[in-house]
Amino acid sequence: MKYFLNPPIADWNQLIKRPSLSYADIESVVKEVIEKVKKNGDKALIDYALQFDKVSLHSLWVSEIEIEIAISQVSTELKNAITQAFKNINLFHQSQKEEVKKIQTLSGVTCWRESKAIDKVGLYVPGGTAPLFSTVLMLGVPASIAQCKEIILASPPNAKGEIHPAIIYAASLCGIKKIFKSGGAQAIAAMAFGTESIPSVYKIFGPGNPYVTAAKQFVQKESLSIDMPAGPSEVLLIADERANPEFVAADLLSQAEHGVDSQVILLTNDAKFWDKLQPVLQAQLHALPRKNIAEKALDNSKVILFHTWDEIMAFSNLYAPEHLIIQTQNYEELASKVSNAGSVFLGDYTPEAAGDYASGTNHTLPTGGYARAYSGVSLDSFFKKITFQHISKTGIENLGDTIEIMAENELLDAHKNAVRVRRL
Amino acid sequence: MKYFLNPPIADWNQLIKRPSLSYADIESVVKEVIEKVKKNGDKALIDYALQFDKVSLHSLWVSEIEIEIAISQVSTELKNAITQAFKNINLFHQSQKEEVKKIQTLSGVTCWRESKAIDKVGLYVPGGTAPLFSTVLMLGVPASIAQCKEIILASPPNAKGEIHPAIIYAASLCGIKKIFKSGGAQAIAAMAFGTESIPSVYKIFGPGNPYVTAAKQFVQKESLSIDMPAGPSEVLLIADERANPEFVAADLLSQAEHGVDSQVILLTNDAKFWDKLQPVLQAQLHALPRKNIAEKALDNSKVILFHTWDEIMAFSNLYAPEHLIIQTQNYEELASKVSNAGSVFLGDYTPEAAGDYASGTNHTLPTGGYARAYSGVSLDSFFKKITFQHISKTGIENLGDTIEIMAENELLDAHKNAVRVRRL
Repeated sequence: MKYFLNPPIADWNQLIKRPSLSYADIESVVKEVIEKVKKNGDKALIDYALQFDKVSLHSLWVSEIEIEIAISQVSTELKNAITQAFKNINLFHQSQKEEVKKIQTLSGVTCWRESKAIDKVGLYVPGGTAPLFSTVLMLGVPASIAQCKEIILASPPNAKGEIHPAIIYAASLCGIKKIFKSGGAQAIAAMAFGTESIPSVYKIFGPGNPYVTAAKQFVQKESLSIDMPAGPSEVLLIADERANPEFVAADLLSQAEHGVDSQVILLTNDAKFWDKLQPVLQAQLHALPRKNIAEKALDNSKVILFHTWDEIMAFSNLYAPEHLIIQTQNYEELASKVSNAGSVFLGDYTPEAAGDYASGTNHTLPTGGYARAYSGVSLDSFFKKITFQHISKTGIENLGDTIEIMAENELLDAHKNAVRVRRL
Repeated sequence: MKYFLNPPIADWNQLIKRPSLSYADIESVVKEVIEKVKKNGDKALIDYALQFDKVSLHSLWVSEIEIEIAISQVSTELKNAITQAFKNINLFHQSQKEEVKKIQTLSGVTCWRESKAIDKVGLYVPGGTAPLFSTVLMLGVPASIAQCKEIILASPPNAKGEIHPAIIYAASLCGIKKIFKSGGAQAIAAMAFGTESIPSVYKIFGPGNPYVTAAKQFVQKESLSIDMPAGPSEVLLIADERANPEFVAADLLSQAEHGVDSQVILLTNDAKFWDKLQPVLQAQLHALPRKNIAEKALDNSKVILFHTWDEIMAFSNLYAPEHLIIQTQNYEELASKVSNAGSVFLGDYTPEAAGDYASGTNHTLPTGGYARAYSGVSLDSFFKKITFQHISKTGIENLGDTIEIMAENELLDAHKNAVRVRRL
């Protein structure tokens, strides 16, 4: 980790920089993949599975029997853990439901909003080194609470043509029965435009590699919606002199192990903290199976000493971290000053790992500074909020002059006339 | 208008098609504009104002004196109308505030969400033929309720270097003091990346021509957020045999007058409705100042007769109109079946014009089918919802096994360790 001592504000914009991701190279690849899927449908997906996943697929779908077998393969211990996480995530996302409030803005003029599920959603779950069944819960739980009519899940198969049993188990807990075997940009294209066997959806969720991200950004321009742009994962941790170096080291490493491009930043007001932390960090690092990845991520990481809490919070808000951990005595006070972050973890016993898996909050969060203007995935992400209004004859009398005068001044006579004909 | 009689479902996908907007041509122009603004800052904006707005600007900002003069130029009648609209929009958007709900998902594990204003927002208000002061209210009111710290407004100046007084008056009602004179893709670029005098923002709102839309989509890829993709305005109106042809004609025309690319669709279950409507529509059309525009828009419009309400609602939901007007006896029943729409207008005395200006709902709504997955602008659009959590020592004991087992199975050992060190 690189150490910075009270850097002047002029340097902050440099310090908050993320590695710039250039999609220019992969955009043309992704466009080609999308065109092929549009043109050749299922066949394109099967061809790509052979090319990238090294598997010859007979069917793109996970069959009912495959689902049963997969569920039987998950250990009771893991099933119980996934079920507990499901319960907590479900409880927290259920609490995000909103009641309809009818507002009479003028006598006879009533306006309200109703949340309506997005009819058809697609959830993408990456394959790769780890089976991300936690992501299935984070997307599947709110989709099922919202009661989206069609929920499909895509994930790349392994060389045996299988999807990891824990992914299938988590999907089944969420009531998802349509799971298809496809990964990468081709899976995104299939969900966006449909193939013979895969229905098109209206919104696509889920993390992925740069090809997946580029494909999501591409289909967003064609009437589709996506959850958010995804980049490398990030944590910013704030520690004071009484923070436990064992806890801090473990939290930094749990971010660093995600990938070599993971972003890790530690802010402290304790001049001695870095000295206390270093040996603990090294010891923990060397015990990790993903040590090489974590080590490379840490090389690009920063420890910054600031003199005041104001500077610490100003820097954190400018950085806008995906995950913000506040391990200080005054965590409540600092929490009240958070303006930009994806998800915030308060106190000594609240590791990010809790929110990653099981406390109840969502782990699909804005990265790369998008937390300045984006929220993480929530129940809202699976709804549209549609406004409704009803105006009575008295209501249009009460509101009529206002509309007519405004319409006239915007030179929109037909708008004025739509009111006038109702007042004759 | 083209008349369709009970078209089979196989034809629906053709009938719901919007004119496809090709941004390919303008993307290169927009890229160049953005690069120039990034490189030359204020100078680029002043050059573009000369080129496109035919005005030589001394300052990009509307000064305090200019604001005072502009306000004095707005008639009392229009001021009163704008103020009434402001009050209604404010009342409805105030009602969208959410209380913080702390949820204990397990003993010692507490999760909640807090709405935090997006620090810096940019509101774009198009110039052109009509001064869209109503758009200022629709964006400025929720921005001010959310208490965004920095709210800037951009609008192209006229040939005298002025912005329309009513735009300035509406902005002042919303407490917006930073108004700058710039339009098109260059204004979007300035708000996205900043210039010497214009601060960069985190999210950009507002309608505009295809250049503005392309610029917004471009900056969205560079860590910025935008309200939504914008296309030509749309209405779908559902009328039964007792609907008043005068009201229906006026509502269709108030959509048609927006532009030649406006989308107008009428659905009815009354075989005689089109015959009743035609003469009324013609008579109203010929009295309009924007007759030529409305006439062209109507040429591309559709009247569709269906036999059943189920078909009517299925078609409407597949089309996903920006505005949906339901002028039928059973409007409450039909309203309960709406799954895709931007904003819904119920009953005979609820013209779309009410929501366009003054009833309280927002008029910045998803077009082009985006209503299948996007909501219109609301107070939410100016907030991020940040999740917070606090876990006690008992809490991490209660949740610990679940996290450790899940982390282990996702092969993320450092995640497991972050819990383990807290349970030693």
